[in-house]
Amino acid sequence: MRVVFQGERGAFSEEAVRRFLGAGAELVPCPSFEEAFRRLDRGEADRAVLPMENTLAGSVHENFDLLLHYRLAILAETQVRIVLNLVAPPGVTFERIRRVFSHPVALNQCRTFFRKHPKMQSVSFYDTAGSVKMLMEQRPTDAAAIAPAAAGTIYGARTLRKGLEDDKENYTRFFLLARTRRGLKAEHATKTSIVFTTPNKPGALFRCLAVLALREINLVKIESRPLRGKPLSISLAVPRTPRAKTPCGTWPN
Amino acid sequence: MRVVFQGERGAFSEEAVRRFLGAGAELVPCPSFEEAFRRLDRGEADRAVLPMENTLAGSVHENFDLLLHYRLAILAETQVRIVLNLVAPPGVTFERIRRVFSHPVALNQCRTFFRKHPKMQSVSFYDTAGSVKMLMEQRPTDAAAIAPAAAGTIYGARTLRKGLEDDKENYTRFFLLARTRRGLKAEHATKTSIVFTTPNKPGALFRCLAVLALREINLVKIESRPLRGKPLSISLAVPRTPRAKTPCGTWPN
Repeated sequence: MRVVFQGERGAFSEEAVRRFLGAGAELVPCPSFEEAFRRLDRGEADRAVLPMENTLAGSVHENFDLLLHYRLAILAETQVRIVLNLVAPPGVTFERIRRVFSHPVALNQCRTFFRKHPKMQSVSFYDTAGSVKMLMEQRPTDAAAIAPAAAGTIYGARTLRKGLEDDKENYTRFFLLARTRRGLKAEHATKTSIVFTTPNKPGALFRCLAVLALREINLVKIESRPLRGKPLSISLAVPRTPRAKTPCGTWPN
Repeated sequence: MRVVFQGERGAFSEEAVRRFLGAGAELVPCPSFEEAFRRLDRGEADRAVLPMENTLAGSVHENFDLLLHYRLAILAETQVRIVLNLVAPPGVTFERIRRVFSHPVALNQCRTFFRKHPKMQSVSFYDTAGSVKMLMEQRPTDAAAIAPAAAGTIYGARTLRKGLEDDKENYTRFFLLARTRRGLKAEHATKTSIVFTTPNKPGALFRCLAVLALREINLVKIESRPLRGKPLSISLAVPRTPRAKTPCGTWPN
């Protein structure tokens, strides 16, 4: 089973892969979300694992857009607790660190740390784990990375500080994608994602939700999105499977 | 009229200030969103201007949380088109640039530019305009900033490239805040923001929206938020003022 994910070995996405598929999956790291979707779509991988939402940073809109663009199936979801560590090559001491590399979203979640250590400059890099990989290759003596613990282990770097994130209630929700629904396990088939547009008029969303409410379908997330160049909005809802299948009456117009 | 905003002189927030209040307002730049809220709340400023939402990056959740925490009034909103320019001190040529400073969100919106120019490293800084200010003070010969055009003008730097952003449909929505509603102009009083929690059960949001739909109130944005440590969700809705005030019947339970 070949699994494509965005980032380098040791990224949070890799932890999500392990949760979905265990340690046996063949890992295919790739540089961008779009390439991960494209590789799965072309059959160059059997599964893709993509982050959809972070409790602090919000939805990963790029991946919502890519889900709409590619016709792939969502097989499962999982939550990964985001613990951000300060990781540096052996020999680099905390006192010598002047530059700290990581993904911009991760850097932004460690603002308290940077406020306390004004000598350290945050430098944005394309990936959290990729920062550790780069430091271990280039071996600067004044630099560290903010990265998952796994990245330190994989590349042979050292963890100098643990849990740098401002907020410990920091989780990322990942989707497991495949080309078809064939791999869908019954115990995972408990949620559905829907994207729809409504006219921009009073009661439009209310009428759409009636379709779900009258069937006793629970909603776990809803988010409106701007439609490019139009004053309408896209709403994304993730309702659970109906508890009871009740017949749905016609909604009065 | 003293107006506090996050960022340095020349930030996009300053453009929003000008749109709201013209060129006569006294500008009070401050380093964080929270400090902008606090200063307004304590009476150290008469107004605050804060970004709430970007078409690409999504909601600024920190400011939604701060709006809930402080009991301030929203007087008006405006949209600012985000145009990101490459700005450098006089004497720095495009070919010599190796480091590009800006706010992480701005850097993340110029990924195509960085892919095309792999010699340039993106370095995250606390503010877009602040990057220009810092470069003009320190005068490195190999660095530029990604910043609004106004920042270049204010600090005497030069614009080397215009419109670096990946997506031109890039707008940020700003709120004008005051301690009380006294300054509210009638022509601005056309929207209301509501935050509420619902039980996590089928039809919960549907019943809440009935209150708006049955009064013909239009919704322009809705977003559910995770409630810390609880499986419930906060929904944030921004409905317009009712078109017609119809009496609201009881919703069947």
